[in-house]
Amino acid sequence: MKELAIVLLSSGMDSATCAGIANKNYRLAFLHFQYGQKSWKKEKESFEKLVEFYRPEFHEIVQMPFFKQIGGSSLVADALEIPDKAGKGIPSTYVPFRNGVFLSIAASWAEVIGATKIFTGVTQVDFSGYPDCRGAFVQSLNESINLGTKPETTIEIVTPVLNLSKKEIVEMGTSLGVPFQYTWSCYRETEKACGRCESCLLRLQAFKEAGIIDPIPYEEG
Amino acid sequence: MKELAIVLLSSGMDSATCAGIANKNYRLAFLHFQYGQKSWKKEKESFEKLVEFYRPEFHEIVQMPFFKQIGGSSLVADALEIPDKAGKGIPSTYVPFRNGVFLSIAASWAEVIGATKIFTGVTQVDFSGYPDCRGAFVQSLNESINLGTKPETTIEIVTPVLNLSKKEIVEMGTSLGVPFQYTWSCYRETEKACGRCESCLLRLQAFKEAGIIDPIPYEEG
Repeated sequence: MKELAIVLLSSGMDSATCAGIANKNYRLAFLHFQYGQKSWKKEKESFEKLVEFYRPEFHEIVQMPFFKQIGGSSLVADALEIPDKAGKGIPSTYVPFRNGVFLSIAASWAEVIGATKIFTGVTQVDFSGYPDCRGAFVQSLNESINLGTKPETTIEIVTPVLNLSKKEIVEMGTSLGVPFQYTWSCYRETEKACGRCESCLLRLQAFKEAGIIDPIPYEEG
Repeated sequence: MKELAIVLLSSGMDSATCAGIANKNYRLAFLHFQYGQKSWKKEKESFEKLVEFYRPEFHEIVQMPFFKQIGGSSLVADALEIPDKAGKGIPSTYVPFRNGVFLSIAASWAEVIGATKIFTGVTQVDFSGYPDCRGAFVQSLNESINLGTKPETTIEIVTPVLNLSKKEIVEMGTSLGVPFQYTWSCYRETEKACGRCESCLLRLQAFKEAGIIDPIPYEEG
């Protein structure tokens, strides 16, 4: 029997591509977080469509109200506006140590369901400078997870798009038949993607460079 | 101004002693988790009493329904009974990678409020064999946290009772004036502590060895 892999699925283009990659060699378990992000509704809809498309053996939506409770990021705090294209340094959309928390919860679930891999779509190429997206961090946390779980538990965090550009991710996803029409990248809560936030700009640029039409609708610029 | 320290406060005797230790040299921020543990109500009451006693600058109760959702431990799963004295190996009360998740969330909060220390009452002496309570794990996760947070963020996980016996923890807490009458260690949801679960047995033994009267009531044996 194939090994079981958890895929952290925000439902953006990077994590959806990870799902397509994991789908080739593993049984699937999809994990999605609702942490008070402004785009929670769109992300949830996208996650449900991806579940319907890939039919994973397990899937969970985890509610985590505390990120909004503790604040500290424009992605969750009502009082802070999501900026258009980010400036220098770590942008206000950074949610402190979010990937550390997500990967820790995934490790907990992996021990329960017997998953041996955790796929995450972090990328350190065309990224927004979030410190918890770097390869060195993920590798270190992987060691911590194996020290902090049962002796018989062995978990490998897999980062298949870590060193790919966004353009290469679009190309890889397309070649794997990833249904990009079901994905959502926009930080905002608009009905159509805004096309102006950092995440939309990175996505639009990626599809443009790859010469592929982005199948989701955008607000009129 | 003194530095700010987060204390992970389950409200058991170990974490309450950590609060007493942190209180000597730091400004305080208390963090408590409600993760579907069967003793949630008693722990919450104890936390609130400790908040009233120490008057920390910040305090948060974080709701985390997912541990119960994903199951895998008798501490949270209704279908699994909490055993009396544990047998060999890792007991059924082990909640997979719980401390990894708790410490990650504490790191996230530390970045938001500017805390430089995270106190945790893990102990590897008279402990139940939980892999996420060992010093090697905590040290490794500390490195991961500093790799995965902002460059200007420096967080130290402090484990003041790691190598103390339970008896020594009772003695230290007593010398610091820790209000043990407000603490709760029992895994069960009984009105008085059951006196039979692993956690009660370790506590009772500790007070007995220290020659100090445990101020909380127990069910008649």
